[in-house]
Amino acid sequence: MMEKSNCLIAQSGGPTAAINASLAGTFHGAYTTDTHIDRIYGGINGIQGILEEKIMDLTDILSHDDNLDILCGTPSSSLGSCRYKLKDASENPEDYEKLFKIFEKYNIKFFFYIGGNDSMDTVYNLNKYAISNNHNVCIMGIPKTIDNDLVETDHTPGFGSAAKYIVTTVKELYMDTIVYDKKSLLIVEVMGRDAGWLALSSSLAEVKINKNSVPAVDLIYLPEFPFSMEKYLSDVKELLAKKNQVIVVVSEGIKDENGTYISELYKNNDDSKVDVFGHVQLGGTGKCLENISVNEFNISTRCIELSTIQRCASHVASKTDIDESFKIGEFVVKTGISGMSRIALTNVTENNPSGKMGCFKRVGAAPYKSAFVLCDTANIANNAKLVPSEYMNEEKNQASDDAKNYLKPLIRGDVEIISKDGQPEHLILHKIYKHTKKE
Amino acid sequence: MMEKSNCLIAQSGGPTAAINASLAGTFHGAYTTDTHIDRIYGGINGIQGILEEKIMDLTDILSHDDNLDILCGTPSSSLGSCRYKLKDASENPEDYEKLFKIFEKYNIKFFFYIGGNDSMDTVYNLNKYAISNNHNVCIMGIPKTIDNDLVETDHTPGFGSAAKYIVTTVKELYMDTIVYDKKSLLIVEVMGRDAGWLALSSSLAEVKINKNSVPAVDLIYLPEFPFSMEKYLSDVKELLAKKNQVIVVVSEGIKDENGTYISELYKNNDDSKVDVFGHVQLGGTGKCLENISVNEFNISTRCIELSTIQRCASHVASKTDIDESFKIGEFVVKTGISGMSRIALTNVTENNPSGKMGCFKRVGAAPYKSAFVLCDTANIANNAKLVPSEYMNEEKNQASDDAKNYLKPLIRGDVEIISKDGQPEHLILHKIYKHTKKE
Repeated sequence: MMEKSNCLIAQSGGPTAAINASLAGTFHGAYTTDTHIDRIYGGINGIQGILEEKIMDLTDILSHDDNLDILCGTPSSSLGSCRYKLKDASENPEDYEKLFKIFEKYNIKFFFYIGGNDSMDTVYNLNKYAISNNHNVCIMGIPKTIDNDLVETDHTPGFGSAAKYIVTTVKELYMDTIVYDKKSLLIVEVMGRDAGWLALSSSLAEVKINKNSVPAVDLIYLPEFPFSMEKYLSDVKELLAKKNQVIVVVSEGIKDENGTYISELYKNNDDSKVDVFGHVQLGGTGKCLENISVNEFNISTRCIELSTIQRCASHVASKTDIDESFKIGEFVVKTGISGMSRIALTNVTENNPSGKMGCFKRVGAAPYKSAFVLCDTANIANNAKLVPSEYMNEEKNQASDDAKNYLKPLIRGDVEIISKDGQPEHLILHKIYKHTKKE
Repeated sequence: MMEKSNCLIAQSGGPTAAINASLAGTFHGAYTTDTHIDRIYGGINGIQGILEEKIMDLTDILSHDDNLDILCGTPSSSLGSCRYKLKDASENPEDYEKLFKIFEKYNIKFFFYIGGNDSMDTVYNLNKYAISNNHNVCIMGIPKTIDNDLVETDHTPGFGSAAKYIVTTVKELYMDTIVYDKKSLLIVEVMGRDAGWLALSSSLAEVKINKNSVPAVDLIYLPEFPFSMEKYLSDVKELLAKKNQVIVVVSEGIKDENGTYISELYKNNDDSKVDVFGHVQLGGTGKCLENISVNEFNISTRCIELSTIQRCASHVASKTDIDESFKIGEFVVKTGISGMSRIALTNVTENNPSGKMGCFKRVGAAPYKSAFVLCDTANIANNAKLVPSEYMNEEKNQASDDAKNYLKPLIRGDVEIISKDGQPEHLILHKIYKHTKKE
């Protein structure tokens, strides 16, 4: 019989609509394993806050089902976040020593870190340090990123909800765009510096006219495939000859064949920000295309940046995403605890859960079914999963059917919103922590 | 017993999330009064399309309840829209003659026009012409505008849903903004060239921390009250001294004390678009504030334009708004038909429904209750209802409690989304019309 100990959960990196569902699932997994776990702590503002001993006891507040439900519908990290990347222990041993002292002080034997690429690097480094220094603490990762660019996993928690927001919004913008009987061009800029998964997801937006389904988005450009301004202009021109309204979705990170960002390319380096066409450069990638398009086609042209709205739109989250995000948190906790009850974690074997991240494996396509597995963060931390060539058409300006089949199940299902007076309710744990400290 | 005749419904002006609920209600009102109405026609692309005889029989397609339900959840004018303003009959009698010939050809005795200010001008002019020329056609208006700036009515269909989108989005952006433990400024630009109702509505966004409710938005600036850049900078500075994250919501149409748009003021008139501070002017009002703020405070600053998304976000529509928009359409039709069965419409009396628009009257505050009345379009067409002074605080940078009490009921209730595969279903009547014509 293992002695009771405590666990710590923290969140890191950019906001998503599903990261709190993972927090809820992780909490629930730990709370329902009460033979091993006593208190469940939350770290405020990720590893950075933990280093300052900003630690909150979540056991009571989250053991109310109502709070757990509200948490699942709360966007952005409820515990707060950070962009702090632990350096290698050889460079900065102080951070590591401090952390493990805090773990010892709070009798923390499990640390669950919910985050993206950089957070998995932290998990990897902490586990390596724990093994080298004989600390029997299980360090595990739970994935999170709207970018869907983590390797080893079929997809990432948070991606499905961001994709669903984009599909819904693009479809509504299509309705808005076609309302007047005149030529127009709409450019929608979505997030994705290196990986174009979010832009790709806009291909799912389809409108039905009588019995026919047509895509709402005409052209899609991703960072993975070199962008040519000449080709873009001819793509749009060709479409405008056939139809009145053209909708383009573009990743913020599209690059030319030399790997230079389009938003960088089409402006001079001086302060006046004049592009190579002699026009004033107005900002991001979409604005850049807008300027050049207006000059080329002289029709009503609008650029819309979905900005940070796309990563925190919990009100239109994907049920599949929220459910899976909850369950992967629960899975990681249960696997970690059952692993720790069998072996010392400093015992490096294949079965040791420490240093691992929970991953999705697609085990059924139609109907869609996913399973959970653990993968080594060593493989995940410094890699990125890009959109493969076969997920685009030959011209690299529209998604292929394979891509749509991959994406479709991830946006399915509508979540029930817990709202009051017409606005969604949220649970902000890091504000509660700060508020309590002040009193 | 009145002889059976036909009616025509059309939509005009900018998209909203509720204009199709009014179309559905108008249709339903006419369809369930089948002792008087035979066929129910839709005009494609407003009065402009009707002049080209683009007319579609809606009777069969909308008598299916499924289609009527989908229509209520479809954003933007399903029949298409136009920005065509009929000139006075003395200037352009041809348009009027043409229209009434088309009415005669299709045996149309009722014309219901759903739209804003300009559309009510059209209703006014058509009715005046009908009376002068002895055409027994009842011409009525059904209000629509996200701007909430029509006089005579407590509020306008479409406003509540746009307001709810803004409240929800601003609340989610608040969650996104507070996630890091650092100073930042977020500027959200919303629609409203002259009337600030939409910006005002963001004051409803409230977050709960323990038992306290705090507003998500710190500062609100409207077109109705002169904007001073110095005051704005000192407002923000004062807040940044007390808290980490500041959120500002601004109407696109804010003006200085001379009535000059801020977005116009802070740029030179030459092509280089350099503002008076010597910085490149990057576009709209929000961008303008962003540039000046970055230079002043040197902290992380972001501007988000809600752009056309805010007017077509049916997926987060207000149930109160959608229900009322349906009912006001139904009310106008029923009142029109019962009026016509009693008197010749060319008989100008107070009780004559022709030339009138349906209005909301608030008959209960807590609980909220609205009633419907008819008002003369003569009073509505060229007036605008602005935000009154008492709806803002003394400093004119935040909403008053009176404003919140007025706004609160309008965003209440969540609509049920009819969706398939994770995306909302829409009914696009003008596309069906064009598709059928092609075959």
